[in-house]
Amino acid sequence: MLTLTIDNKRLLQSIKASSIIGPTQNGGLNRLALSDEDKVMRDLFKQWMEEEGLQVRYDDFGNMYGRREGINNDDAAVLVGSHLDTQPNGGKFDGVLGVLAALEVIRVLNENNIKTKRPIEIVNFTNEEGARFEPPMLGSGGIANIFSRDFVYSIQDKDGKSFGEELEKTGYLGTEKNRANHIHRYVELHIEQGPVLENYRTNIGAVTGIQGMTWLEVKISGHSAHAGTTPLSMRKDALLMSSKMITLIHEIASQIDSNSLVTIGRISAFPGAVNCVSGEVVFSVDVRHPDDSIRENVVEVIRETLSTSAASENFGITISELWEIKTSHFSEDIVCLIEDAAKERNYSCERIISGAGHDAKYMNHIVPSGMIFVPSIDGKSHCEDELTLDDDLIRGTNILLDVTLSLSQS
Amino acid sequence: MLTLTIDNKRLLQSIKASSIIGPTQNGGLNRLALSDEDKVMRDLFKQWMEEEGLQVRYDDFGNMYGRREGINNDDAAVLVGSHLDTQPNGGKFDGVLGVLAALEVIRVLNENNIKTKRPIEIVNFTNEEGARFEPPMLGSGGIANIFSRDFVYSIQDKDGKSFGEELEKTGYLGTEKNRANHIHRYVELHIEQGPVLENYRTNIGAVTGIQGMTWLEVKISGHSAHAGTTPLSMRKDALLMSSKMITLIHEIASQIDSNSLVTIGRISAFPGAVNCVSGEVVFSVDVRHPDDSIRENVVEVIRETLSTSAASENFGITISELWEIKTSHFSEDIVCLIEDAAKERNYSCERIISGAGHDAKYMNHIVPSGMIFVPSIDGKSHCEDELTLDDDLIRGTNILLDVTLSLSQS
Repeated sequence: MLTLTIDNKRLLQSIKASSIIGPTQNGGLNRLALSDEDKVMRDLFKQWMEEEGLQVRYDDFGNMYGRREGINNDDAAVLVGSHLDTQPNGGKFDGVLGVLAALEVIRVLNENNIKTKRPIEIVNFTNEEGARFEPPMLGSGGIANIFSRDFVYSIQDKDGKSFGEELEKTGYLGTEKNRANHIHRYVELHIEQGPVLENYRTNIGAVTGIQGMTWLEVKISGHSAHAGTTPLSMRKDALLMSSKMITLIHEIASQIDSNSLVTIGRISAFPGAVNCVSGEVVFSVDVRHPDDSIRENVVEVIRETLSTSAASENFGITISELWEIKTSHFSEDIVCLIEDAAKERNYSCERIISGAGHDAKYMNHIVPSGMIFVPSIDGKSHCEDELTLDDDLIRGTNILLDVTLSLSQS
Repeated sequence: MLTLTIDNKRLLQSIKASSIIGPTQNGGLNRLALSDEDKVMRDLFKQWMEEEGLQVRYDDFGNMYGRREGINNDDAAVLVGSHLDTQPNGGKFDGVLGVLAALEVIRVLNENNIKTKRPIEIVNFTNEEGARFEPPMLGSGGIANIFSRDFVYSIQDKDGKSFGEELEKTGYLGTEKNRANHIHRYVELHIEQGPVLENYRTNIGAVTGIQGMTWLEVKISGHSAHAGTTPLSMRKDALLMSSKMITLIHEIASQIDSNSLVTIGRISAFPGAVNCVSGEVVFSVDVRHPDDSIRENVVEVIRETLSTSAASENFGITISELWEIKTSHFSEDIVCLIEDAAKERNYSCERIISGAGHDAKYMNHIVPSGMIFVPSIDGKSHCEDELTLDDDLIRGTNILLDVTLSLSQS
């Protein structure tokens, strides 16, 4: 069987074209959802889809689709894509790669006159980043019935402009019947946004799911005191206590399971003066693990250990759960297709869990879904120096081509 | 010999009168230096001094003096006092006690027709708190030649009003020749502002000096990363590293000398989001010890240990010294007089080092000085619930009377 391969130059050219729509000073992108820049990018993407003969449509969340008919047009379609919006100081690859790689897949199929059994649809989801309208993933979450349309339309950006009004202004407000609704599988190519693939010199990540997370807020109450007049033995220093707890939280996570992730990213000490012993400290704890029961166990042990520790040293403690979300498990057949394709092409490949959220997370609620990851240099993302090397962009797109083709022929 | 004793009711009445000049909602005082409230208090204090027949004068820093002649008026005078200004949300005793106790000493001597060999002067120093005009202790620091007059006059409050202009407005701008300049000893009664005396159920602290301090700012540089995508083993979490260092700093201080005080009162983590591993953390370190060489050693060991620790785990570190001040040692003869007086009156007494700065610190540069401490409930000060019990106010003032009398008869 002839192995199809993408047009490397054309793929990189598409990404380059996207890179100059909403550019930042230091080589990144600022293309917030439903902004003027987003509209320019949407217009270009629409034009590209039309040039490939795709049937273009938009749904009531502004998600854009391009459909390529198959031999059996009553069969459920294979949906492939991601998002074209970015963070305010984002990079050129997050989301963009997945959409433009899907377009490249169509172009390869077209130029080779490949007929697929199932139809193929490519998609650009609205407001994946959540940088302008919070929470993130409103387009995919909308069609997956995670969010109601009324809720999504009512969300305002920091200037008080609503999603509903801004969507209408772009001209990409479509209808509910245009939503992706007869879908066989959803596949998304994305940069890893973490350092694992690069660290292990792995070309392709076969993503097994998106890990769940729990966010806690811990408040430690001691006694504020004068730094010069209060002997160490008479202090109840909430920051010293918190420091011990932060170390302890990491020990707990590592002991329970080496794949546990715990992060203390936010901390405030009160009163916060150089010469004052802290009377109160508030810090966040982000806990993640691919296995929900292990994550729940880590959270439980953290709660118990911190409470015991605080009580034994006479500190006050309150632990609140800010939010919790369970792990999504992707379709095993897609994971296997990715592994097979990588083997066929002699790309190194490992199974990996996604730490970040993606449109595939919500799509997985309504259709078996999967993701392909390619390496991020230094694990950097959501910043101007986000970088995935050309070879990796190309390898990822070839795997997307293989997987899409397999799924659309099944 | 007859033991003189103060008039308890009169002392408490004076403090009560002060407590209603610039009161806050919850029983504290807001009487910033050279404010309208400070002027009202100064006027009252001036009237009280005149009623006792003292010769009242003010110097070029607005320090107010009342002089009671002795038998030998060419002898150097005994100077006794403190300050009447407060923090914006301060208490009723910090500073106030020392000035009004000095007034009570004069009243007792007057009503008992006691002639002293040396003259006695009582003093209210300007802007001890530094809450309105920074730095603190401008009045005592001015006459001790720590600060130049031009510098002090030019200091502006947050509304841009200068010390010089504001002093003139109060009517308490005097002349340089009025400064305390022929002084035998300076003695100051003050609340401890710490928990030590109360903790050990000690009535009187014989203050041996004011401990020196060093302020450091430590900046730890790691790598910012996504909380969901970066395995613990691949992180350079500046907050986790800082937490270990904060614990380590306390261990170092305790190991070197149990009297060392170290305080980390201020901490900031960047970028400071729940789902971001901290790339950079900045925290302060306040180091104090009665013995300058031990303090310097603690600072040196902290610097070396943190630097080694950061280097071994590949973190960046910069440690800057924000400021440093050496320990003041008070006059041993005053410490002994306090101890003798306490013994005579059957008050428990311990030697204690002051952790906070006081006017006596600067006065000690130009004249042998000493301080008497009385307990602060829960060690609280610079807050509305600052409290020293009546019995302790009375005990402290009796000791001030004894020490002043001894010094003025020598």
